[in-house]
Amino acid sequence: MARMATYRIKVRSREREELVEFTDEVRRRLRESGAREGVCVLYVRHTTAGLTVNENADPDVARDMLHCLRTLIPQHGMGFRHGEQNSDAHIKATLTGTSATVPFENGELL
Amino acid sequence: MARMATYRIKVRSREREELVEFTDEVRRRLRESGAREGVCVLYVRHTTAGLTVNENADPDVARDMLHCLRTLIPQHGMGFRHGEQNSDAHIKATLTGTSATVPFENGELL
Amino acid sequence: MARMATYRIKVRSREREELVEFTDEVRRRLRESGAREGVCVLYVRHTTAGLTVNENADPDVARDMLHCLRTLIPQHGMGFRHGEQNSDAHIKATLTGTSATVPFENGELL
Repeated sequence: MARMATYRIKVRSREREELVEFTDEVRRRLRESGAREGVCVLYVRHTTAGLTVNENADPDVARDMLHCLRTLIPQHGMGFRHGEQNSDAHIKATLTGTSATVPFENGELL
Repeated sequence: MARMATYRIKVRSREREELVEFTDEVRRRLRESGAREGVCVLYVRHTTAGLTVNENADPDVARDMLHCLRTLIPQHGMGFRHGEQNSDAHIKATLTGTSATVPFENGELL
Repeated sequence: MARMATYRIKVRSREREELVEFTDEVRRRLRESGAREGVCVLYVRHTTAGLTVNENADPDVARDMLHCLRTLIPQHGMGFRHGEQNSDAHIKATLTGTSATVPFENGELL
């Protein structure tokens, strides 16, 4: 068993604003690593995407989350100056965070 | 000294929106672990609760924080559809974050 | 090579609201540590300052971010009670987060 293992997961989004679940991908890498107890550090390498932990049971929660963030931080109408018109995405990523840390035990994410 | 130790802390809340401090509980576990230098990873297993680090010196800061979050993300009035009526809690948890990482030195949280 | 190394970085701000980049300081410590693969945990010891990861290519992004946070969470006008008049800063720090975790490979931050 390696003391630490790094994996890359490619996550595709199809909408400008979207929650994409990839928990199963993380679980697969955790199984591959053979690690039983430790901390899984997730890090997204795009600064216009954030990470969150949610049970994703009811799609309405995802819908409400996007709706709320879009209402508070709309793409247009706040006087943003950045030419790529994605300041809202940078801000949302900063607020949700670009890393998440999830402990695991007996090879299972907690 | 264990290279890594995992502890469970039960934190009870009494209000729908509340800041509950449990720093002393974390300190106790850190002492028990015998670790002198490292990183303390805190992770909350409820997706309607978040974690933050604050000196909690003046209760007005906690009050202002809850007041502000409630103003920006009210339980009702934003058109949330999730039937459990806790979309606001999911969103606040996503924004504050479900994990916090605090380094320690000489057995003391930094 | 040490299994873990802790460094202190002093970051000065000059404005009440400001994004201050210190990536080069982090890179220097990472080089000093000699570590090739691992996780860099950043933690800010002030509860009125937060941490974020951003490419900081266009200064307009930083400007838009501060503008947006100031619009949503102004210093005055939300009925804050905390006497130091920095509740807005505590809240912004809670939302952006007081820690950031960045993996590295081949001695380079990812």
